[in-house]
Amino acid sequence: MRTLTFREKLLAAARANDSLLCVGLDVVLASLPAPLPRAPESIVAFNRSIVEATADLVCAYKPNLAFYEALGLPGLEALARTLEAIPEHIPVIADAKRGDVGHTAQAYARALFETFGFDAATVSPYLGRDALQPFLDYADRGVFVLCRTSNPGARDLQDLDVGGKPLYEIVAERVLEWDRHGNAGLVVGATYPDEVARVRKLAPEMPLLVPGVGAQAGDVRAATRAAVDARGELAIVSSSRQVIYASGGADFAEAARRAALALRNEINQARSQPLAPSARPRGGADA
Amino acid sequence: MRTLTFREKLLAAARANDSLLCVGLDVVLASLPAPLPRAPESIVAFNRSIVEATADLVCAYKPNLAFYEALGLPGLEALARTLEAIPEHIPVIADAKRGDVGHTAQAYARALFETFGFDAATVSPYLGRDALQPFLDYADRGVFVLCRTSNPGARDLQDLDVGGKPLYEIVAERVLEWDRHGNAGLVVGATYPDEVARVRKLAPEMPLLVPGVGAQAGDVRAATRAAVDARGELAIVSSSRQVIYASGGADFAEAARRAALALRNEINQARSQPLAPSARPRGGADA
Repeated sequence: MRTLTFREKLLAAARANDSLLCVGLDVVLASLPAPLPRAPESIVAFNRSIVEATADLVCAYKPNLAFYEALGLPGLEALARTLEAIPEHIPVIADAKRGDVGHTAQAYARALFETFGFDAATVSPYLGRDALQPFLDYADRGVFVLCRTSNPGARDLQDLDVGGKPLYEIVAERVLEWDRHGNAGLVVGATYPDEVARVRKLAPEMPLLVPGVGAQAGDVRAATRAAVDARGELAIVSSSRQVIYASGGADFAEAARRAALALRNEINQARSQPLAPSARPRGGADA
Repeated sequence: MRTLTFREKLLAAARANDSLLCVGLDVVLASLPAPLPRAPESIVAFNRSIVEATADLVCAYKPNLAFYEALGLPGLEALARTLEAIPEHIPVIADAKRGDVGHTAQAYARALFETFGFDAATVSPYLGRDALQPFLDYADRGVFVLCRTSNPGARDLQDLDVGGKPLYEIVAERVLEWDRHGNAGLVVGATYPDEVARVRKLAPEMPLLVPGVGAQAGDVRAATRAAVDARGELAIVSSSRQVIYASGGADFAEAARRAALALRNEINQARSQPLAPSARPRGGADA
């Protein structure tokens, strides 16, 4: 066990930096600022600059593994070195969306939590409880289960009516049941604030990871108001491209800092304007 | 585009080897045969021996990425070198179960189909059509969408009743709709032959990937009979541990060959005893 659980580490970072902003480190070579050569080694230099420029403004970082895997071994090497560049007190979430049968899920959990050393990971619920269990068994790590995602296709399955409720609500209810160590969270896209509010109502005390702000056009204020818990905490509002590619020139790090600061402040304004109490219960789950 | 599509390559290998057997290259260090040192480099030597011993008995190989990722960079290096050891005419399926929003799914598809060069991949349907589209857009590669998986937790979500049908049937129907290039397939666990038969009825012409034979206790005959198409083809019956760990001694490769041969023959016996015609339509989809 680590000294702090993911939840404790998240709350500590969020309070120290007065921030619910998570920066997505989703780097593609073609989008690197002009001064950096288009090579995998540049990714580490780029990420290090972004982290140095924003580490006092965020509650977490979130690299999506896809962008590193697309570059093959040099990309995964860059991911490992990026993790080393992130200060110990800032939690790092592996956006990996893994989901496999128990025996295999165990190998994925080991890869993310032990080999890479991430503080938390995103996982997919489609295979059911035994696919999530090996992740949840790491009681000191966070496990964010996909619930209602930020993409247009989220509707295809996640909104299907299951006995009067959309599938994503069933997923939220199941995850609440399965969360024996209090280390589960849910992923709810910023692009659907009404659904975020419904999930927050079902899971009043869970951390919610809210991607889709910025490039994916999620309304940051509406999403934040819907996502925070009764104390205005435990929402992780994630933006990648809007922050990391704020400038394509030599000033990219300063520009990323300005963008992160503006977004952090916008999120904080929304935190102080919570939704009507009817939509945000203060007590236990009413699921 | 490659010379052959995945479907053509699969059918050619299956016919040449008279086999529907797929060997899962899911290697964990602790299970390596005694003569091999417990080190990532041994995985390449082990896989090469298994491939040499079985390449005339299979229709495909299927490494599950989790086991390689669990070993970090040396594991992924071993995966890349394993792919080089597989003869060009045998298709290789990346069991990766990826699923992410469109922009990110594109990076995953690039990682699997371009960086690693797999012929096919498994993907998760939870994020909907736009998460699958970047994979399906590689018209010469196969895309196996998780439908009804082999694990006990498959019931948790996949069997939920959606307007009178289980969710996994809705998934099968959607994939049929989305399959514009004829390169989609479905994953249906061998542990649930009745569900395999229902999926085959809905998708009479799709390749079905059927894992869960052997260590997961799927009944190979029942699963094969349910999975094959009207011509006794297009089922990929996958077994890993039962074949690759058939012996823990110096004779591991010969033992793997004997296990693969026995399993191939058992599958072929079942192919010649199809299900009653009522359960296996010969014409178009009756969904």
